[in-house]
Amino acid sequence: MTSSQAEQLINDTINSIKPLDGSTMEAASKRMDALLKPPGSLGRLEEMGIKLAGIQGTERPKTDAKLSLIYAGDHGVTAEGVSASPPFVSAVMVKAFCAGKAGINVLAGKAGAEIKVIDVGLATPYEEPSKLIVRRIRKGTGNIRVEEAMTREEAYLAVAAGIQTAGEAIAETGASIVGIGEMGIGNTTSAAALTAVFTGRDPATVTGGGTGVGDASVKRKIKIIKEAIKLHHPDSIDPIGVISKIGGLEIAAMCGAMLAAAAGGALVLIDGFISGAGALCAFAMAPIVRERMVLSHLSAEPGHRAMAAKLELKPLLDLGFRLGEGTGAAMAIPLIEAGAALLSSMGTLEEELVKLQDPS
Amino acid sequence: MTSSQAEQLINDTINSIKPLDGSTMEAASKRMDALLKPPGSLGRLEEMGIKLAGIQGTERPKTDAKLSLIYAGDHGVTAEGVSASPPFVSAVMVKAFCAGKAGINVLAGKAGAEIKVIDVGLATPYEEPSKLIVRRIRKGTGNIRVEEAMTREEAYLAVAAGIQTAGEAIAETGASIVGIGEMGIGNTTSAAALTAVFTGRDPATVTGGGTGVGDASVKRKIKIIKEAIKLHHPDSIDPIGVISKIGGLEIAAMCGAMLAAAAGGALVLIDGFISGAGALCAFAMAPIVRERMVLSHLSAEPGHRAMAAKLELKPLLDLGFRLGEGTGAAMAIPLIEAGAALLSSMGTLEEELVKLQDPS
Repeated sequence: MTSSQAEQLINDTINSIKPLDGSTMEAASKRMDALLKPPGSLGRLEEMGIKLAGIQGTERPKTDAKLSLIYAGDHGVTAEGVSASPPFVSAVMVKAFCAGKAGINVLAGKAGAEIKVIDVGLATPYEEPSKLIVRRIRKGTGNIRVEEAMTREEAYLAVAAGIQTAGEAIAETGASIVGIGEMGIGNTTSAAALTAVFTGRDPATVTGGGTGVGDASVKRKIKIIKEAIKLHHPDSIDPIGVISKIGGLEIAAMCGAMLAAAAGGALVLIDGFISGAGALCAFAMAPIVRERMVLSHLSAEPGHRAMAAKLELKPLLDLGFRLGEGTGAAMAIPLIEAGAALLSSMGTLEEELVKLQDPS
Repeated sequence: MTSSQAEQLINDTINSIKPLDGSTMEAASKRMDALLKPPGSLGRLEEMGIKLAGIQGTERPKTDAKLSLIYAGDHGVTAEGVSASPPFVSAVMVKAFCAGKAGINVLAGKAGAEIKVIDVGLATPYEEPSKLIVRRIRKGTGNIRVEEAMTREEAYLAVAAGIQTAGEAIAETGASIVGIGEMGIGNTTSAAALTAVFTGRDPATVTGGGTGVGDASVKRKIKIIKEAIKLHHPDSIDPIGVISKIGGLEIAAMCGAMLAAAAGGALVLIDGFISGAGALCAFAMAPIVRERMVLSHLSAEPGHRAMAAKLELKPLLDLGFRLGEGTGAAMAIPLIEAGAALLSSMGTLEEELVKLQDPS
């Protein structure tokens, strides 16, 4: 695929995202109120059921198949010592995902979601498991403190890789709920930089410790992000430019996967801070995508609240997660499913009152 | 059963609640840290797994069988117009639970929990479904504004009914997680009164709209609770006395069920505001019971935060629920199960590093 073909695919995908079905949502909302419970008494579960009804265009939405997509990419900025883990851990984890041994395997398994692992840019050479989907655009990004993360062409290709792999996975499984997760040592640095640019906030307010660095390292991380932004001048009105300058290959692919899932009629489950950075990119390209998104949880990363505010999405869960991999999205799946099940399985007050009067 | 036999059963149950297994919890905590993720990065899920390990005395706790117990009772205080629903709705809902049509049926079904419905005190005559467990102590409580809810003897019997029915259900199913829910029109009034007494707070700060009354009715509800407390002088150092004066039959039974579940080695899942009132009663009788409790969610009722503070338990979920029935507890089950599954199913970093070096 050439980068102009990739650009075309991105535009076509964006143009095929439809608004939610308002009249079905209204009908679903009325049905929620008629069910055997005081109106609104199941709070956010009702909201989830109604949203899924609007996405699927039916008052009885289905949640048979669920997907958990994990995009992996490495980050050149790890050369600056921004992460507690060495970069080769990305490859260790990709192997663990394919072997069924990581946190996401346990949690997606419990949620009944099928996992697909896609390498869009690991840097470490490793024995690729047969289950792995390999769509490597390049071997890790450049060190954003001193160079662009990737070329503009590579950014188009990485977003397109997300669109294609998510589109294929949805076509194969018929998934109606798609969790979007990631693996990439060093990627909280890129995610914080993207958050600063897309929300217009000071990097100091949206940068945290990632999966394990202390206060001194957070200060260093903030300094690196400020330097990267000063060097590259990313402009939020050009999302592909922002991705190429300070983004990540897996973040670009997640952005594409979210666009594809929205275009494909699925509910898009944002995971944590890195997945949220992908969502900010997708939202900058196509604000309509937000309607089909659910923010699964509030990450322990401080920048996650800024993302939530920008996306105008309220997290469903707050469990102190800071792992990524799609683990938060997996935990949100039972809530979405339960919201849909209310519409399909509960009785109405009217039906039950009739039965009380006539016990036959 | 005589009330002195009931009192004996309560004391025996309390005396058989064991402290958590501290050394197993320490081992489970170490295992959590060795798993293929940064220590602590799965936040409250890790806490749940470790707690369950301490309850079961094994580093690999099981969550095969789950129970959702629903205790139903009516409230004489409904004569004061404290509820938006007429009292016979309690019976309508009990029938709906047994017919599988209510919110808890959908949510417990999704969570894989078996439902048991126990009538410990409905006032409305109704055709009893064959699935229903009938342990009616009396037909609804007295109107607490003008009379005691029940006699002291009835309070013992109601708590004992909870102990027996929960004990039987746990013996039958082998459940390791027990959600405790309820149905009883008017019961937020009793629950708010109990909360005020057991937390020492002003009724005005712990009384809310229940499942549907407006601001004017909340004011009236507060006035009634204040009158009831002034009339009966409930004393928190005598929990059975408090229950008999301002409690509810289903609340007393939930208190007993929590004691029995704790004694039976299960994790006790508190549901919403009314279930929390049962937990406050159980905690007042036996503070050790708290160690085996999880507060499933933060109810929309304002008094729920006061309960959480008194029990020193942090809610797992905050979904704006105000339904009861055990619905919040059912939504917490997947989180507990996932926490346990981390311990039994995830790989350790050490194991995976070895595999990376030796791909055979």
